[in-house]
Amino acid sequence: MLTAAYAGHQTMTVLTAEPRPPGPGEVQIRVAYVGLCGTDLHVLHGAMDHRVTTPAVIGHEMSGTVAAVGAGVEGWAPGDPLTVMPLVWDGTCPACRAGHRHICQHLSFVGIDEPGALQEYWTVPADLLVPLAPGIALREAALVEPLAVAVHDVGRSGLAAGETAVVLGGGPIGMLIAAVARHQGARVLLSEPDPARRADAEAWGFETLDPRADGPDGDLAGRVDRLTDGAGADVVFEVSGAPAAVLNATAIAKVRGTVVIVAIHPRPVPVDLQRVFWRELRILGARVYEREDFTRAVQLLADGTVPASRLISRVVPLDAVAEGFASLESGQAMKVLVQVGAEA
Amino acid sequence: MLTAAYAGHQTMTVLTAEPRPPGPGEVQIRVAYVGLCGTDLHVLHGAMDHRVTTPAVIGHEMSGTVAAVGAGVEGWAPGDPLTVMPLVWDGTCPACRAGHRHICQHLSFVGIDEPGALQEYWTVPADLLVPLAPGIALREAALVEPLAVAVHDVGRSGLAAGETAVVLGGGPIGMLIAAVARHQGARVLLSEPDPARRADAEAWGFETLDPRADGPDGDLAGRVDRLTDGAGADVVFEVSGAPAAVLNATAIAKVRGTVVIVAIHPRPVPVDLQRVFWRELRILGARVYEREDFTRAVQLLADGTVPASRLISRVVPLDAVAEGFASLESGQAMKVLVQVGAEA
Repeated sequence: MLTAAYAGHQTMTVLTAEPRPPGPGEVQIRVAYVGLCGTDLHVLHGAMDHRVTTPAVIGHEMSGTVAAVGAGVEGWAPGDPLTVMPLVWDGTCPACRAGHRHICQHLSFVGIDEPGALQEYWTVPADLLVPLAPGIALREAALVEPLAVAVHDVGRSGLAAGETAVVLGGGPIGMLIAAVARHQGARVLLSEPDPARRADAEAWGFETLDPRADGPDGDLAGRVDRLTDGAGADVVFEVSGAPAAVLNATAIAKVRGTVVIVAIHPRPVPVDLQRVFWRELRILGARVYEREDFTRAVQLLADGTVPASRLISRVVPLDAVAEGFASLESGQAMKVLVQVGAEA
Repeated sequence: MLTAAYAGHQTMTVLTAEPRPPGPGEVQIRVAYVGLCGTDLHVLHGAMDHRVTTPAVIGHEMSGTVAAVGAGVEGWAPGDPLTVMPLVWDGTCPACRAGHRHICQHLSFVGIDEPGALQEYWTVPADLLVPLAPGIALREAALVEPLAVAVHDVGRSGLAAGETAVVLGGGPIGMLIAAVARHQGARVLLSEPDPARRADAEAWGFETLDPRADGPDGDLAGRVDRLTDGAGADVVFEVSGAPAAVLNATAIAKVRGTVVIVAIHPRPVPVDLQRVFWRELRILGARVYEREDFTRAVQLLADGTVPASRLISRVVPLDAVAEGFASLESGQAMKVLVQVGAEA
């Protein structure tokens, strides 16, 4: 079979390998689609070299069907459509014992710390499988994982119906958070400097703001203030990874408002702690997802609530994976999928 | 009567003035003691020049007795011992309407935005008065206000019995937070670089840490990790105002732990948002107090739970207020009181 692997030196390579048959408690998956995400790009850039052994088969946003079932696995049969929640926790660390297994202190992220989905047949523990609901195409199902991130982020924020959420950053995760927040009954403002991305967001029906423009109401904080009758935003999602957005986030949150840190900020960045103090703000980190976030993401796709497949800019075959990463890197694409197997 | 006022140019001046009789709804207080705090020092340094009109009578940590009662004031009689909760809210802004009057968007802080307690007779709205419980000396009662800050901070953190709190900074507020946290049933570790302050904290019975020393368990994070069986602190109070402490705060908090920002950080400081994300931390701002925090602070002093009077390093008369500020500025004093009137 074919696999796509990170080979070091900012290079993806396509290799052939023998499929691994499922051991006890495992399932072998026939992979259909794999989404490429910012984390995969970080791996390609070498930022995860301390975590991977090359050649490293990566990929963790995926869809597929059961190819073969190992001993002792119940509830799964060949052909069943699925996605994978790519987390393996130790179950014994203080975080796991306190009930936060999804952010286990020794969490293994499948697709980085262990082999990922960019291979025709992928064998994983059966516990990781999440069934798809009828009516979800496998192409769309590759978006369950990023949608589960968005569900987790909105859930953690405590956003309630009738509140105002501002999403800073209109990439795929920002758009999915905006869609989930709106489904929650919130008013959503999406702030994004790129005009093409703002146009996308408007096509989805979101009010947009250009964080770099000064309008008649002043800077971003002035405009959000005006749009919220002087109160500020109930919840701000920082999804951009831009240091300027972090300062905007605290500037636009209401008294006792919430800022959710979704983006990766690899190095410490300046935060206006005086504003955090002054308005008694709450800053929350939100990472990955729990199983109920995956289940909810499957439902939101199945019932058409979140039109996630509109995020797909391009689909490339497995042997063109490098081209897929180049599209992603250009900043012109929203979501790039790799088609690994034929559509079931 | 005598008053002590900030005259601009880093100068305190002692003036004479006519006491203002209480109008309707007001009470004239015979001031006994006024505590000097970091905020007063900020005023003296000129950092609040945009908020004050000189000469500005400052001071907001105080005790006294009723001198005269204005028309329509009920429940107060001359001689009643009291302290003042120095907040005036507008009651109409979005924060007030949402129930957060103590951090009103147009909050007036009495002692900065309006005249404060450094005068023999001080007239304020009767709503601001808080009765003292029997058995609290007026000298000690000047510490109700900073203790109310500590009660508010611990309350906001959600700290529970059996949890571990780390207090970063062993000044007066840090010590009071530590005392309230311990009374809550928490284990308290106090981190403070100054050996004399660590010795004070140990005399109060707290475990201490030197944040600048590397022990056999490594840096502060390594030591807290060891002391908490690898989990980290449930709650971290950042009371120091030092940028290095902000990085320590996120390093030592457990997965889903809480960091409370108590100190003033006038300019944005680097925060490790990657750690906030990775451990799903919660950073909370905590500012001033609500009325129940004052009531609780009075109780904690009255029943001897918090030996706040041990924080008093020095008491100076009103005409030596400049000397009092100099003591505070030297960093050698914990709490400096100004004795305005004779002890009742």
